[in-house]
Amino acid sequence: PSRLPGFATHQIGVAGAVVDESNGKVLVVQDKNKTVNAWKFPGGLSEPGENIGTTAVREVFEETGVRSEFKSLLSIRQQHDHPGAFGLSDMYVVCRLSPLTYDINFCTQECLRCEWLELAKLADTNATTPITSRLAKLLLHGLNRGFDKIDLLMEELPAIYSGRFYQLYHRALPQALKQKG
Amino acid sequence: PSRLPGFATHQIGVAGAVVDESNGKVLVVQDKNKTVNAWKFPGGLSEPGENIGTTAVREVFEETGVRSEFKSLLSIRQQHDHPGAFGLSDMYVVCRLSPLTYDINFCTQECLRCEWLELAKLADTNATTPITSRLAKLLLHGLNRGFDKIDLLMEELPAIYSGRFYQLYHRALPQALKQKG
Repeated sequence: PSRLPGFATHQIGVAGAVVDESNGKVLVVQDKNKTVNAWKFPGGLSEPGENIGTTAVREVFEETGVRSEFKSLLSIRQQHDHPGAFGLSDMYVVCRLSPLTYDINFCTQECLRCEWLELAKLADTNATTPITSRLAKLLLHGLNRGFDKIDLLMEELPAIYSGRFYQLYHRALPQALKQKG
Repeated sequence: PSRLPGFATHQIGVAGAVVDESNGKVLVVQDKNKTVNAWKFPGGLSEPGENIGTTAVREVFEETGVRSEFKSLLSIRQQHDHPGAFGLSDMYVVCRLSPLTYDINFCTQECLRCEWLELAKLADTNATTPITSRLAKLLLHGLNRGFDKIDLLMEELPAIYSGRFYQLYHRALPQALKQKG
């Protein structure tokens, strides 16, 4: 195997599923510039040096005007020859966010519509993408049974060479095991 | 927010944790060209267009001579200004693999040592990196309680624009919910 240094091969897209636990609704948008008007979660590309959770919160605010906070990572998708990525590969990450504000003030340049939609409706409708439909079902499962059934948690750990910190995401580990060693 | 097309900002590194369920051992290596001789999982950078699971299986074979198959995704780490990535960002993904062969024939250019090590030992030793130690604890939890406690499953779904397929990873969803809608 080559030990030459690598080069960037992927763009990272991040979507934020902002779930209002009080009424089971989730914040969704319809893109202005797509032919199919499908409901999807707001999101966009990570800027260089930006953490996943920061991208999700920023993009949700820019597109919808809703402020939110990062809760967990739900899913990642890898896609090659992505049409929006000039033949490069695309890593699309969906985060679960919790709303801090509720009033919608959406970006009319990007979005045609923006609504708080019942998760149960989003899980059932055909007016969405396969990945959004799947994630809506996963979020509905979390809403009904507890988000600990669907979350990947984030933690910061020290990088041994640089002394800086990185973000690690995985399923919950019992506290007793985490502290061992 | 800008709707200009993006550019690749991340390299994707993939490691494979090959767990032998019959004896609770995992395949680990020590890099030749690092000053600290820390046990870690074999792995390397994804080639353009390569799926995560394919990278893990390929890198494990190239470094250790052991053949394996992809089981699940366990964890992702995001790190910025990565020393091996020329200031770019690095997404490091750890997969769980199942061994198909057991004889070690490691790459002496890359590795100083390569062993099947008890997961319990790897979870306890200081001769490893923080992320490897954490993942060893997670794998030990899976070995003891069932890998369904730690896995993210992979599924292929159709891409609506290209008609091609992509790989989606998330926690298990009850079958009844998956088929709905």
